[in-house]
Amino acid sequence: MEFDTIAAISTPMGEGAIAIVRLSGDEAVPIINKIFKAPVEKSLLEVPSHTIHYGHLIDPRTQQIVEEVMVSIMKGPRTFTREDVVEINCHGGLVTVNRVLQLVLNQGARLAEPGEFTKRAFLNGRIDLSQAEAVMDLIRAKTDRAMNVALGQMEGRLSRLIATLRQEILETLAIVEVNIDYPEYDDVEEMTQQVLVEKAEYIKSEISKLLQTSQQGKILREGLATVIIGRPNVGKSSLLNSLIQENKAIVTDIPGTTRDVIEEYVNVRGVPLKLVDTAGIRETEDIVEKIGVEKSRQVLKEADLILLVLNHNEELSSDDEQLFEAVKGMDIIVIVNKTDLPQKIDLSRIRELAGSRPVVTTSILEEQGLDELEESISALFFEGSVQTGDLTYVSNSRHIALLGQADMAVNDVLTGVENGLPVDMVQIDMTRCWELLGEIIGDSVHESLIDQLFSQFCLGK
Amino acid sequence: MEFDTIAAISTPMGEGAIAIVRLSGDEAVPIINKIFKAPVEKSLLEVPSHTIHYGHLIDPRTQQIVEEVMVSIMKGPRTFTREDVVEINCHGGLVTVNRVLQLVLNQGARLAEPGEFTKRAFLNGRIDLSQAEAVMDLIRAKTDRAMNVALGQMEGRLSRLIATLRQEILETLAIVEVNIDYPEYDDVEEMTQQVLVEKAEYIKSEISKLLQTSQQGKILREGLATVIIGRPNVGKSSLLNSLIQENKAIVTDIPGTTRDVIEEYVNVRGVPLKLVDTAGIRETEDIVEKIGVEKSRQVLKEADLILLVLNHNEELSSDDEQLFEAVKGMDIIVIVNKTDLPQKIDLSRIRELAGSRPVVTTSILEEQGLDELEESISALFFEGSVQTGDLTYVSNSRHIALLGQADMAVNDVLTGVENGLPVDMVQIDMTRCWELLGEIIGDSVHESLIDQLFSQFCLGK
Repeated sequence: MEFDTIAAISTPMGEGAIAIVRLSGDEAVPIINKIFKAPVEKSLLEVPSHTIHYGHLIDPRTQQIVEEVMVSIMKGPRTFTREDVVEINCHGGLVTVNRVLQLVLNQGARLAEPGEFTKRAFLNGRIDLSQAEAVMDLIRAKTDRAMNVALGQMEGRLSRLIATLRQEILETLAIVEVNIDYPEYDDVEEMTQQVLVEKAEYIKSEISKLLQTSQQGKILREGLATVIIGRPNVGKSSLLNSLIQENKAIVTDIPGTTRDVIEEYVNVRGVPLKLVDTAGIRETEDIVEKIGVEKSRQVLKEADLILLVLNHNEELSSDDEQLFEAVKGMDIIVIVNKTDLPQKIDLSRIRELAGSRPVVTTSILEEQGLDELEESISALFFEGSVQTGDLTYVSNSRHIALLGQADMAVNDVLTGVENGLPVDMVQIDMTRCWELLGEIIGDSVHESLIDQLFSQFCLGK
Repeated sequence: MEFDTIAAISTPMGEGAIAIVRLSGDEAVPIINKIFKAPVEKSLLEVPSHTIHYGHLIDPRTQQIVEEVMVSIMKGPRTFTREDVVEINCHGGLVTVNRVLQLVLNQGARLAEPGEFTKRAFLNGRIDLSQAEAVMDLIRAKTDRAMNVALGQMEGRLSRLIATLRQEILETLAIVEVNIDYPEYDDVEEMTQQVLVEKAEYIKSEISKLLQTSQQGKILREGLATVIIGRPNVGKSSLLNSLIQENKAIVTDIPGTTRDVIEEYVNVRGVPLKLVDTAGIRETEDIVEKIGVEKSRQVLKEADLILLVLNHNEELSSDDEQLFEAVKGMDIIVIVNKTDLPQKIDLSRIRELAGSRPVVTTSILEEQGLDELEESISALFFEGSVQTGDLTYVSNSRHIALLGQADMAVNDVLTGVENGLPVDMVQIDMTRCWELLGEIIGDSVHESLIDQLFSQFCLGK
């Protein structure tokens, strides 16, 4: 395929030692050659691929020096996009890097859309769609575990598994086709049905295995939306602060929004906890009063995990009971805090209210019980199973939805055979399963979906 | 000189397409070679300098893939630090880049201190101190003009000028020395004095020229601390917002502090306006009431520019007059806003109160008069003189202070000669001038000063 030449700033915005402006396309090298001046004259058109060159960028209109740079020349197809790629390594800083970008745009490069470099890697056939999606997961990974899942996917782990399943389906369809075309043999119908059922059950079990990892995969990818609730003065802020202090907080600006919208992540034993609305929790102590309000209920409903904090030093109040009522059926961990003070709370009543959900006693003041709390969080969602690392995790909502639909298609195959539907009807469901799996790796997907997927990428990738 | 091998993340922290971990030192190449695996085996110890290599980083303890990377090998002395430099180009993202850094630290690299790469470039003699300082100015530059000043300094413009002056002083001192050593010639004393006075006057005029640019240079480098004041409802917030909207705001986190401390810059015709305490202005409308309070006076006193906003649609109040009183002797621009509403204010009285300071009428609502305001700001501080770009700007406080001291030393030379002091006494002052100028470029500076200077750099530079 042939595309125009694109350019973008590929390093995060902000002050740093180095910033990179990246170009990709046929004109990448000619463009940089027009504005580059080495101490000893040389043409970048003639240098070998994968080499680095020191020099200055000169604005051809004014002949003035724009920046001191290192230019990397990488000729396709051994590049990220499979096209010619140029990376201009300049001094970090907002003005410097923007000026360099402006200069290459003036020379005829087009400003890249978000994700356009990775999109080209996909369109030029270097990676499939699930690998492309993993590139962004890798960048957004909040913990080591999440990064390992993304890395595995980027290296093609999920792609290979999906490709194998699709190959199996294709072979089955071929057998079915042959059997339909040569009905002169005996037992053809019976044989065809047997093959279909066997394969469908195998495919179903493989899809199930993948879907089993999906809840954990999704949590690793997106973080565990966590809300801390409790009456005033039970230690909610202290809990929040000690979670943040013990586990380095990762603060992220959501790209494209104002800087007021901030998500705070803490890494608890590899599980990224996304602390929802923490500012609100810090400032307002009256969440109990507001518990009747629809909005508060909404926040609770959207949470993956609720930490319900009680005071060891006070009797259980009706407010506390009301909180238990509000989080019915949700994943909660009950925290009985302030064990440094005398016990006034009825622990057996709490265990009763908690049911099968874990109860942890802590004294955040004296740094007691936090280990047990982290243990509980990790156990509640992972039961240690992520540690092994030999599973293929499905973490992307799009993939999970497609696997679910493929699972339904395979079920249709099985009920079809059971209900004695004609083989060519059953075949249609099997083909649909093959197509749905294909969408995961980007085979047979619509252009609009591709555009939409890559638009969620960050600039310069 | 020989140093250990250092490593740091050299791109800004945050989500981006690419992040770089940089190493410098004798062990840089051996360290990367221990953890790098190319698709077709190769040793990075043997590859040519200034080449790029695709592959994976492998954790030697677990044999697991840590990242997919491009590694740049640059062998000294043709590098930023003059040492062997390795740049590991990995996927952006907080976890990914930290994991790569951790891996190279585990292999024996030491985490670099802020500015340590540039410090090595200085200690290894590639650049002098004023050039090193310009590197950081370049990164922090808020406007194109500021960047040009930094770029000029980095390319050695100031260094060459200082070096020339020092050479002149040295030659003068040599002549004086010869004259002292051979007093048998006639008129020696007179001749020596004449040479000293001539040279001192020349040096003095050159230093003056440099100091003349320093106010503008300092503003370009650090921004013009600007405060907007006025009674409630005169349009302060609207003015602020339209300044920000018209001129792309640059929001900077101050490195090393919490994210609450934010400076907002707007670029007004190349002049970086640093809007001081804008949050406060947005929220409190009662600055008039607080004008008596010491703290408010302090904010005004530290401002470089005060924008005093009045209401075209109301009569001048005693509050307004009080504001004029509070900003006496400061650089102010008077803005008479709301010209879309009927005039009730007495403009001639305002001109009287403003004296020689500019008065601009605006209707921010109808986007009238903002051009004139920007013109006034630019004229007040630059009178267009920055445009020419052929001056050597001194922008750094340290340089300005040293030039001031050098100027005093040269004055001491002149008064010494005038008062008939012995030539060897006068010679001491001339030598001091030579030393002070040397400190600007890092000749004869204390190690502790160097440490302190580079510690203000950002990480990875």
